[in-house]
Amino acid sequence: MRQFQSDLCHALETCDGGATFSTDTWQHEGGGGGISRVIEGGDVLEKGGVNFSAVQGELSPQFLKMLQMPDPNYFATGVSVVLHPHSPMVPITHMNVRYFEAGNGQAWFGGGIDLTPIYVDLKQAREFHAQMKAVCDKHHPSYYPEFKKWADDYFYNEHREETRGVGGIFFDRLMATAEISLEERFAFVRDVAYAFAPFYTAIMNQNRNLPYGEQEKQWQLMRRGRYVEFNLVYDRGTKFGLLTKGRIESILMSLPTHASWIYNFTPEPGSAEAMTQDYLKKDVDWLNVQ
Amino acid sequence: MRQFQSDLCHALETCDGGATFSTDTWQHEGGGGGISRVIEGGDVLEKGGVNFSAVQGELSPQFLKMLQMPDPNYFATGVSVVLHPHSPMVPITHMNVRYFEAGNGQAWFGGGIDLTPIYVDLKQAREFHAQMKAVCDKHHPSYYPEFKKWADDYFYNEHREETRGVGGIFFDRLMATAEISLEERFAFVRDVAYAFAPFYTAIMNQNRNLPYGEQEKQWQLMRRGRYVEFNLVYDRGTKFGLLTKGRIESILMSLPTHASWIYNFTPEPGSAEAMTQDYLKKDVDWLNVQ
Repeated sequence: MRQFQSDLCHALETCDGGATFSTDTWQHEGGGGGISRVIEGGDVLEKGGVNFSAVQGELSPQFLKMLQMPDPNYFATGVSVVLHPHSPMVPITHMNVRYFEAGNGQAWFGGGIDLTPIYVDLKQAREFHAQMKAVCDKHHPSYYPEFKKWADDYFYNEHREETRGVGGIFFDRLMATAEISLEERFAFVRDVAYAFAPFYTAIMNQNRNLPYGEQEKQWQLMRRGRYVEFNLVYDRGTKFGLLTKGRIESILMSLPTHASWIYNFTPEPGSAEAMTQDYLKKDVDWLNVQ
Repeated sequence: MRQFQSDLCHALETCDGGATFSTDTWQHEGGGGGISRVIEGGDVLEKGGVNFSAVQGELSPQFLKMLQMPDPNYFATGVSVVLHPHSPMVPITHMNVRYFEAGNGQAWFGGGIDLTPIYVDLKQAREFHAQMKAVCDKHHPSYYPEFKKWADDYFYNEHREETRGVGGIFFDRLMATAEISLEERFAFVRDVAYAFAPFYTAIMNQNRNLPYGEQEKQWQLMRRGRYVEFNLVYDRGTKFGLLTKGRIESILMSLPTHASWIYNFTPEPGSAEAMTQDYLKKDVDWLNVQ
């Protein structure tokens, strides 16, 4: 996980070209700690965080029930990434890989990658999903359809009745089964992790020089507002961090430098903003959108 | 409640002088509805919402338990206000008065006023608390000490270990008792409501022409970020609205036009920002701060 964090930061820095990641290490009160790496004011990335943590502790009874954990003792390690570009033409993205161990010996992997374009580009969304499918198909034919649906359901602002973006893949509690060993689960998760930088740096390079104006910037700030809503109201990783007394600045480094809320904003019918809004729903067949 | 909403908007418009409140009426799926009034781009107020609602419905079992409600049927009416000024020298403020009726006939009032200065002004904080105490003392000697403490505990960002601002008063479930009738509770709540405009328009006028620069503006955007965190993570009114399928734009009109998150920002020791940060804690005796 630490090696992956380091490789990923290096790939993102190289692509960005304008700034490098700072490094903060921290301790967790129950045991363990983490390394938070943050980039600010890059050429492409306004703010990006790549967080590694490996923490242990004991969950409160209330939290135990909420998480449906079999035992209060836990060990959790993972890398979590959120990238907020300056340009509204470059999508926000998020990636996470994690490993959990409960006190009773149960162990599982979780993770995912999702993409939040400010303006949906159908070709790019299709290619993104094709790449996610390729990573999944290498390991199991059921993975992509199952994890794509899971992403639709998870990255969803229930109160807005809209998805956070064009989805991607999301999975949790991938344990050893009669058919699939924990080692095979790990091999899949490692492939997901290492698929992230190639996919996203390609999009950074494709979109970094696209022109935009005030209208696009304002729409971006509002979409970032929805991102904040999702992370603070629904995101389980954020909740887990806040409730287990994680390091706040590392948990909330997923929030953008600037975000905006405009009362009752409705995109002009037929505009690029309205087209994006129309695509923020579940069950879009992204592999075949035209 | 509707008369109060109208009086309050009139007082705020007159003081602001640069914009007027728009009006949206809406229906609630369980029955009833509301009137949302919003001001944007005023001389003092960048964004302000004054929301009236009177809704009824039936609570889900999960929500019933969470709210500790005695009966799934409810009727709720209230006015809720959040004001975000342009200038970091003018505090953010919030006010709410509400009346609940459960299906079993139990009825109660709730509400409060709190102040979130971007820069704590001790004299203004002292005067604000003296005004709140005067309103409380008119009705019961226990009200101010009890409701001041309640505000400290309620308007608290647990994960940051900091209060939202300098507190104020907060109260809930004020029912009829052997000592105090429901009519007397109502008289108190009405006085709280009508104390709001005089208190806040005085602060608007005192502070509206104070100079400020880039540093103050950036600090304001970050304090607004904390305001967003509180409202989305903790605020019960927001949760109630989201879970009872209220009108989203009316619930989230409490969020500022612009907010900001800077990774690991720490105020310079001895700065005005650090002084404010030091005061964002519970149990400050605001009536006697010097």
